[in-house]
Order: sequence, then C-alpha cells, then structure tokens
Amino acid sequence: MKVNVGIVGYGNLGKSVEKEILKNKEFKLVAIFSRRTVTSPFSTPVCTYDEYKNFKNKIDVMLLCGGSKSDIEEQAPEICKYFDTINTFDTHSKIALLKTNLNQIAKANNKRSIISVGWDPGLFSIIRSIFFAFSGKMPTTFWGKGMSLGHSDAIRRVNGVEDGVQFTVPCSEAITLAKRGKDLTSISLHSRDCYVVAEKNHKNIENQIKNIPNYFLGQPTNVTFVSRDTLNRLKRDFSHKGLIISRNFSAGKPEISMDFSVKMKSNPDFTAKIMCAYIHAVVNLKQENKTGSFTALDIPISYLFSPSNKDNLLSSLCWHSLFTFLAKRDIITLFT
Amino acid sequence: MKVNVGIVGYGNLGKSVEKEILKNKEFKLVAIFSRRTVTSPFSTPVCTYDEYKNFKNKIDVMLLCGGSKSDIEEQAPEICKYFDTINTFDTHSKIALLKTNLNQIAKANNKRSIISVGWDPGLFSIIRSIFFAFSGKMPTTFWGKGMSLGHSDAIRRVNGVEDGVQFTVPCSEAITLAKRGKDLTSISLHSRDCYVVAEKNHKNIENQIKNIPNYFLGQPTNVTFVSRDTLNRLKRDFSHKGLIISRNFSAGKPEISMDFSVKMKSNPDFTAKIMCAYIHAVVNLKQENKTGSFTALDIPISYLFSPSNKDNLLSSLCWHSLFTFLAKRDIITLFT
Repeated sequence: MKVNVGIVGYGNLGKSVEKEILKNKEFKLVAIFSRRTVTSPFSTPVCTYDEYKNFKNKIDVMLLCGGSKSDIEEQAPEICKYFDTINTFDTHSKIALLKTNLNQIAKANNKRSIISVGWDPGLFSIIRSIFFAFSGKMPTTFWGKGMSLGHSDAIRRVNGVEDGVQFTVPCSEAITLAKRGKDLTSISLHSRDCYVVAEKNHKNIENQIKNIPNYFLGQPTNVTFVSRDTLNRLKRDFSHKGLIISRNFSAGKPEISMDFSVKMKSNPDFTAKIMCAYIHAVVNLKQENKTGSFTALDIPISYLFSPSNKDNLLSSLCWHSLFTFLAKRDIITLFT
Repeated sequence: MKVNVGIVGYGNLGKSVEKEILKNKEFKLVAIFSRRTVTSPFSTPVCTYDEYKNFKNKIDVMLLCGGSKSDIEEQAPEICKYFDTINTFDTHSKIALLKTNLNQIAKANNKRSIISVGWDPGLFSIIRSIFFAFSGKMPTTFWGKGMSLGHSDAIRRVNGVEDGVQFTVPCSEAITLAKRGKDLTSISLHSRDCYVVAEKNHKNIENQIKNIPNYFLGQPTNVTFVSRDTLNRLKRDFSHKGLIISRNFSAGKPEISMDFSVKMKSNPDFTAKIMCAYIHAVVNLKQENKTGSFTALDIPISYLFSPSNKDNLLSSLCWHSLFTFLAKRDIITLFT
C-alpha cells in the first residue's frame, strides 16, 4: 500500500520534495497546493491552496514546504486538523511553542505532526544531542559556507537595496580552537559575506547592513556590491555545509573527540530527502496509534524506515554491515 | 530521587562504569557483583555473583559488564527477570536473536532490557542508520587503530602462543576511495597488526594466525613477535577510533557527503559513558510503562536525558545552542 502524499507550497523546497517523492515507489504524490499559479514539469496536479480540505480522505501525509517562516506558523495549525503533516520549521526560538500548539490540535484530531525536520534543526539536533549525551560536553556547530535565507531577506529590506544574498562562512580560526577544545566565547564563529545590487549610496547601504541587530551587528560582515548578473549566478548556488565538533578534555588531553560534517550540493534537495524519510516515521507512529506533535528527538531512529523492510534493512545496516560485506567475499569475521 | 544502580562483572568495563556512575549525582551505586574475589578502590560493596537476586527491591537498573560474549548471553536472560538491565552485547550476528529472547522475558516480568549500547553497536548503529535514511546510500565504517578483544582472543588460542594482542588498522587507501564514493568490494578495508609473545616456532605460529578463518584469513595481517614487557605496554593502550563515511554521488559529482569520526583515549571509559546515558532511557521508558527489549534504534534520542532536566537541556542543546551562545554576547540572531 502506497502512502498518499500532498505538497503545500511550491518554492525551491516544494520542487525538491516533488522530485524526491516521485523517485520513491512507496509514495504516491497526489497533488501540490499553492497560492500562486504554478505548473509542475512532472504533470503533478496543482490545486489552489484552499482546496486542500477537499482531499481529506485522498491524502495521508501533507508536506508543508512553505517558503517563509510565517507560512508554516499560519498553515500548520490549520492543515494538521485534516492530515498528518511534516514541516521544517526552523525558527529555533519558537519550536517549543509551535510543538505545544500543534500537539493539542493534532491529538484532538487524531493526527500526527512532525515538526522541524530539516538538516538544522533536525539532523543536527540529533547529532548535537547524542554528542552531548555520550561525551558530557556541549558541542560546537559551524554552518557554511552556504546561503542563509533569513539573512538574505534582512539585506533586501534595507532601503536602496535592489537585491542581495548572504553567505555564512565559518571562521577557520574558530574551527581550529574548537578542535583543540578551547573556550570560544570571545571570538566570532562565523563571518557574513553579503552580495548586494544597488544603484547608489553604497557606503550608506553597507553601514545600514552592518548595523542590523540580530543579524549582522557585532559579527564580521563583508558587503560587496555586484552586478545583477553576478547576483543571479550567486543565487543559483544552493550548496551548503555544516560541522559539529565535540571535545571532552581532561588534564589538557583529549578523552573523547567526535566530529560530524555534512556537505550538500543542494540545500533544498537534502532537506527534501530528510522530510521524505519522516513519511516513514508517520506510518510507524500511526501503526502504534500515536498522535500529537513530534520533533526529530522524539522519534526512534528505526521509524525512519518503512515498516515493511525495517527489520531486514536495519539488521543489514546497523549490525551486519561489515559482516555481510565480508561474507560476500568469503571472509566472515567478527568485530571490530 | 536517585536511580539505584548495580554492576555485574568487574573487568575493564565494570571498573569504567563504576567511575562513571560515581561521577553522576543522579545515580547511586549500590553494589558490584562478581564471580571473582575483587575489591573496589572506591569502597563500593562487592557481592558474589549469585547474591544479585537478594537486591530485587534495592536496585533499579543492573549494568551488565561481563567481560566475554558468553557472559552476557548467559547472564542477561536470568538477570532481566529481576531488574531493568543494560548491556553492550556486540556479537552483531546474534543481536536480533538476543533481542527476541530478552523481549519475551522482560515483558513477562514487567522489565526493560536495553541491549547492544556501546559505541559499535550502539552509537555507530544510530549514525549509520541516519546516514542511510537521509542520503539513500549505505555508509562505510572503518575501525581503529585500536585493540580488538575478539581477535586478541583468537591469537591466544594458537598453540605455542603465550600471550598476544591485535590492533585493527584501517587502510588509508580504502578511506580515500570511500571518500571519493568508489566501490570498495575488491580491496581490504582494514589490516590486522598482531603482537605475539612466544618462545619458539615463530614461523609456524605466524602461519597459523594468518590462516584462522573468520578472523585473519584473506585479510592483510602482520605478525610481530615481542617481549613480555613490550606486550604488557601494548595491552595498556585502550585508545580506539572509528570513522563512518557516507557518499551519494550523481553523474560523478557528490550530492551529499557525510562523515562521522570518533577518537577515544579509553574504549571502556567511552563505552561506560554511553551505557550510563541509557540509564536515563530506562527511567524514561519506565515512566511510559514500556516493557521489553530495546536497541539504540528503538529509543528516541530525547530519552538519553533525565526526565527532570530533559526539556531545558534539549531546548538549549538542540534548538538554541547558537542562539543562547550569541544571546550571551548581545548578538541574538536567527539561523543559519
């Protein structure tokens, strides 16, 4: 039995999610819901946003791919009355509140709402938590080099700016210190590279950008004015990176060192892959009659696999990976 | 309310677990159970193995630190009738069977049994599973350099060998290929460095070791004969390392690359830290009236934290880590 899936929002993330669902034989993409007039290159049916209510018994899981933070905060509480939902809500300071709200609504409607499951929050939340739980020390996270949508939006709100993007760049000195287990409170972890299209007033615009509180003020910020063509080329770079470093030093010597790093060609493609893994989690939670809202930390890792092949896959993946590999070569061995 | 903990087995792991429990104010170490006559440098009460049944209402969680695989297979089914238990069972091919057996016994006795939670299996199982779930590709695991107890045992069973240890060493060529997303089926991932004390017949012993099926046959194996003193020094090196590499290439270019690495000064100390994190998991499972057996993959990551500070800790750790860090410096920012 295929899982019937719907997509709400057809920006970069929605398009990546569409491709990912179409690749997977366990899912069936029923429709895309958008406030704008859009068409799918894969001939997926497109409906207006308000039509979602008519699909109550035709869609099992709705993936919320709203482009902006306000989209999800507004749409999720409504849509989760009708469907199991998955979102990538990433305003870290508001996740706890959204979780509480959606938990009540989802429970009242016998539904599941999986929230904040991109790569950060989501994957990185899992890694940070296990690093902390198993080493006893708070890990350090570095992002980039990669485009930040929130910071790019902030640039575009400055008077006189025609367009702009921001790339977050980790400071190599900070990475070196983190790997040595040093205190990082007095240095910057990231710098902010801003590329701006503006006709005039460059000095004034640069000053305004560097003084935007919560985004740039107090952080190393570089502002470069570029042509419209250059900016368009920069905007097509969806690559991103991340690094989590955990060090537990005792008497100046490292006891436990853990590093996690990820590099992706396309931020929306990777986020889409993660969202789609959580479709399996919805199915597993449903089989156990669980309702409410869940983050990546509330869901057992085994739920990321479809119930039908979970046991087989997990045993080969988690316990036997070397075993089966060597067995193929007639070199069955014990560990490690 | 402290969690009352007992330790079964007082080898290297048992000793590391003792130190770890004594460091944590949420746990109380009640007693150590051992078949041998041992004393604790921390004055922990030591009982003979058979006395464990008398502690039925005095101990909540029993940590099984038996030195050999046969210990856990024999002890776990008995002890889990009386207590919630945690073990590090690492015979990968037998984990599924042990889980099924312990699940029945634990459920019948209203208990929880958490199995196979060291760094591999355990931590590495979690990492391999999320890498696979989020990238769609089977990751590659490298172990070492570090001592392998199973392989060291195999050496010591060879006729004429007085003592010996084996260090597993990952092949750097294989790591390079794995990072490039290449096929690894035709090359060795690890080599085996054996250090042996033997009075005579060195050539014959070397041949015997290299031909032990399931352990050395078909793998690059180096045998070095050393003095008793050198071997004793080597045996005190409990450091170990591990590396998990995930690559998803498309048309020759990397789409998603993920790396995880860990380096530990002491294998038993790190394993002990992981076991103790799962004491919190037992408490969380108990609060939800869950019984049966569980691997690292069956337990939500949030259960690795004590129920009393779970919410606070998780919100600062997982969602707000950068946020709170920057807030301290008056640079509150959104992500990423």
